[in-house]
Amino acid sequence: MRDYLIVVAGGKGLRMGGDVPKQFVPVAGLPVLMRTLMRLHESAPEAQIILALPRNHQAYWQKLCIRYAFDLPHVVADGGATRFHSVLSALSHVSDEADGVVAVHDGVRPFVSVDVVRRCMREARNTGAAIPVVPVVETLRRVKADGQASHTEPRSEFRMVQTPQCFRVDVLKAAYAQPYSDAFTDDAGVVETMGHGVTLVEGNRDNIKLTTPDDLKYAEFLCLAST
Amino acid sequence: MRDYLIVVAGGKGLRMGGDVPKQFVPVAGLPVLMRTLMRLHESAPEAQIILALPRNHQAYWQKLCIRYAFDLPHVVADGGATRFHSVLSALSHVSDEADGVVAVHDGVRPFVSVDVVRRCMREARNTGAAIPVVPVVETLRRVKADGQASHTEPRSEFRMVQTPQCFRVDVLKAAYAQPYSDAFTDDAGVVETMGHGVTLVEGNRDNIKLTTPDDLKYAEFLCLAST
Repeated sequence: MRDYLIVVAGGKGLRMGGDVPKQFVPVAGLPVLMRTLMRLHESAPEAQIILALPRNHQAYWQKLCIRYAFDLPHVVADGGATRFHSVLSALSHVSDEADGVVAVHDGVRPFVSVDVVRRCMREARNTGAAIPVVPVVETLRRVKADGQASHTEPRSEFRMVQTPQCFRVDVLKAAYAQPYSDAFTDDAGVVETMGHGVTLVEGNRDNIKLTTPDDLKYAEFLCLAST
Repeated sequence: MRDYLIVVAGGKGLRMGGDVPKQFVPVAGLPVLMRTLMRLHESAPEAQIILALPRNHQAYWQKLCIRYAFDLPHVVADGGATRFHSVLSALSHVSDEADGVVAVHDGVRPFVSVDVVRRCMREARNTGAAIPVVPVVETLRRVKADGQASHTEPRSEFRMVQTPQCFRVDVLKAAYAQPYSDAFTDDAGVVETMGHGVTLVEGNRDNIKLTTPDDLKYAEFLCLAST
């Protein structure tokens, strides 16, 4: 039995004058993406890591690995135009005969806890599909189509979805054999479209997706607070 | 015309051996609640601050004010069993003839921006009721009553609600003349129950409600990062 850890690191291009994608930004001395890979490896040391990176980021990543002497074994797959296409590309590195589980994780979530990764993978082994979620702590409103009227929704019925989203290999492969749809917001959605249910597992609140400059400041704080 | 800033600082009791309520915990050298009051005062220097505090916290607060030489003028109102009752008590210090606006703010949200407070108060002056909201950045799921089945909701239709929730005095007074209901989750809900609409205003993401020990560590970081 072999397990896989697919890391999706898409994001905007490394265009001239543009921002460096968050996954390459060093936080407390180490690029975010390396922190993410290390955390996943710590959680499942036997699993194979497949990193989906846009082709035009791959040379840069290689240089970063040399500069930081980063030698954690991983396969690089070509990232696609959407998350769906990146995962599909990464899945081509997973044997159809594989009988383990696949965890699909965002490259910019270095703070997932080891416990959460293990819990999700274990649950996916049992049920076929499991994702980490956290409660909604603020009052939640829903805005009507006109953008004006809104009403309060019962927040206790809602959950925020994180990654790694974990699946049995056969389940995820079958799901990604479906044609692409704009309605796919995450991997769980692809699997559900096929008719397979998804189990919710308790996530950790710190497992934020680093997307803004403020998030990177917070990431720096979390790294320093934990050492 | 006179405006009012009601600060709600309820929380668990100061019981023996229990945790100190978050509003009294010093962050970067100053208790959270003092930071909150200072930020509100900076946003609306002419407005009168009314602090709703449980009776058995008031002596402690007074000692804190002396220890930290905190001399920002404010009225202390008796906090009640629920947020509704605390706001109602604070409103008894607002004249029925007042023609300004009231901002109701959580004592444990010291990081609201001056811009957001001013924007909400201005909008409330125009429309009668305005609250700050931020977008939902994660995939959102709704859990069915059985706690198992769940489905993805369109996150773009949802907003997270913050404070200060701002209202014209006459609107808020009329709303709080209604009998209490368990269904009131925030002040906007009380006003809406009366049939008055609420305008949504863009909030600032940093305006988090400090509720966990991790939040306090992050607050320390935010204070240090901004100096």
